[in-house]
Amino acid sequence: MKNLLFVIIVLCLSCSDSASDKSKTEQVVKEFLPVIALHGGAGDLKGLNLTPAEEQQYLIVMDSALHVGYQILVNGGSSLDAVESVIKIMEDSPLFNAGRGAVFSHEGKNELDAAIMNGRNQDCAAVAGVTIVKNPIQLVRHIMDSSRFVFLSGEGAEQYATDYKIPTVDPSYFFTQKRWDQYQEALKEDKEKLDHSPSSEKKMGTVGCVALDRYGNLAAGTSTGGITNKKYGRIGDSPVIGAGTYADNDGVAVSCTGRGEDFIKVAAAHEINSLVKYKKKSLKDAVEKTLKEIVSKKGRGGCIVLDQKGNYYLGFTTSGMFRGVIDAQGNKLVKIYE
Amino acid sequence: MKNLLFVIIVLCLSCSDSASDKSKTEQVVKEFLPVIALHGGAGDLKGLNLTPAEEQQYLIVMDSALHVGYQILVNGGSSLDAVESVIKIMEDSPLFNAGRGAVFSHEGKNELDAAIMNGRNQDCAAVAGVTIVKNPIQLVRHIMDSSRFVFLSGEGAEQYATDYKIPTVDPSYFFTQKRWDQYQEALKEDKEKLDHSPSSEKKMGTVGCVALDRYGNLAAGTSTGGITNKKYGRIGDSPVIGAGTYADNDGVAVSCTGRGEDFIKVAAAHEINSLVKYKKKSLKDAVEKTLKEIVSKKGRGGCIVLDQKGNYYLGFTTSGMFRGVIDAQGNKLVKIYE
Repeated sequence: MKNLLFVIIVLCLSCSDSASDKSKTEQVVKEFLPVIALHGGAGDLKGLNLTPAEEQQYLIVMDSALHVGYQILVNGGSSLDAVESVIKIMEDSPLFNAGRGAVFSHEGKNELDAAIMNGRNQDCAAVAGVTIVKNPIQLVRHIMDSSRFVFLSGEGAEQYATDYKIPTVDPSYFFTQKRWDQYQEALKEDKEKLDHSPSSEKKMGTVGCVALDRYGNLAAGTSTGGITNKKYGRIGDSPVIGAGTYADNDGVAVSCTGRGEDFIKVAAAHEINSLVKYKKKSLKDAVEKTLKEIVSKKGRGGCIVLDQKGNYYLGFTTSGMFRGVIDAQGNKLVKIYE
Repeated sequence: MKNLLFVIIVLCLSCSDSASDKSKTEQVVKEFLPVIALHGGAGDLKGLNLTPAEEQQYLIVMDSALHVGYQILVNGGSSLDAVESVIKIMEDSPLFNAGRGAVFSHEGKNELDAAIMNGRNQDCAAVAGVTIVKNPIQLVRHIMDSSRFVFLSGEGAEQYATDYKIPTVDPSYFFTQKRWDQYQEALKEDKEKLDHSPSSEKKMGTVGCVALDRYGNLAAGTSTGGITNKKYGRIGDSPVIGAGTYADNDGVAVSCTGRGEDFIKVAAAHEINSLVKYKKKSLKDAVEKTLKEIVSKKGRGGCIVLDQKGNYYLGFTTSGMFRGVIDAQGNKLVKIYE
């Protein structure tokens, strides 16, 4: 890891991430080389039988989201800004199960969950079950920056969005034919199966991003529509800080995707952080150990993980994970399958 | 720790906690000496100026709850059964901020959160924001034992309760004059302060229980009404697995109480588990380190922690915590202040 040591005049250490402990006078700052990674969900992606043209669509959105995030970092923006911007792009795309492309719940609604976390001080925020917020990642960023709340839900979280003028939309904004068809299919399966399992699990979605900025601060964010045909106000791991999302400058930034129930049981994101921070495991070993534990519970999915040295690992137990990274040397990778 | 090694005929390794991996044939089983601990919330308890008669009321409920839980354990019941029974008693008491005695939200409702976790296999369940479920701990136990869900919320969770015949009540069941007066006071303060801080924090409540059964299985549970005058569908740490509640036979069982936001940020319960499991910290050191981190974020509260050897620690940063324990030697302690 090549990091540069040099003196910069810190007139304003950038934007809303600036904190009282940051001096506004001249100081020696260790500069870090930015890294950004994202995922667009793991699952039986081979089973989706995407055409080359469809694959290309996914790759293009991930590629452009990565570049937007990376430019923010290179230009001295915070990792939180990069994470928020990347996830917003993926939420705005109908391709991913988050924001615009969210799946339908059992009641035929799009119930969105999201979380964001600052690795510098563990500030964070999450929302569950919002149905009118255009970009849940923007809502959680506002909650984190401008309130003492951490975890808001349902109509209450929507009231917060309205009170603080976070853009809202008519629920029909989230309608996409593809997700509606999946929902109809799931309803049919459900009727036949008469069990309580969330169906259509091969179409697991979720988007997430982890970033390291020039100031050495990690951030993580996750956004999802959950599982098609989800019932009973089900909340997955994405908005559970420590399960689907975590960030700690002394450990790692993590965003997970998969069957949320099993990620909650093992507190996956915080477990990976603990294995790196306290057991000194490599990122790969920490992720693989945690995913193995999840698989032992018949769960599956993936994680993207990044540390302050710019090391990263993108792990998954499925036939694919929409994913991409621009590393500390500026090398880019965008992939779907193994 | 004196543990006995002996042969018992395992005809049925007890109740709903029995699992497919448990052999029903004769086997050598290491028997553990049962331990149970509970809390009824931490806070500025000295500031409550309880009369000796009021203190006595709290001590009597905690004492009887402890005895009920301990008898279950001594008679070979599971730690999950003990935790559920103890918390049910505390939910049924109007003294504690859980179940019957829950505080009022900003909208004048009693919104209840709860969680339960099995240390043997990390099975768990949680609910947030239910308003008609008499005993939320009973609901989470059912979700854990009888569904593939982990985290349900709001009306959806209430629908689950109705579908599976978990006892529900008219919301007026949760009315207590004391909590209503606190709510009116908080509303008034809020109006004057016009800030976003949840008010009346000195009256933090929450109940929790951790237990070790004769089979060496740990369990943890937590139940709460949250914070008086809470807004925006706020969810605290209690139902966030890894924050307010966690259990791992290889680590510890934990239940926390306090300003939930800060417990979520540090994933308090899972952090304590990690410090014990991976850093080999003592329970006291793990709790104190985690609470110190929470205090550095201007948070406060407490935790009860128990390991498989029967070691326990009841820590808090406030002027008191309603708490009690019956240890491996059968010694009992029930206290309110330091």
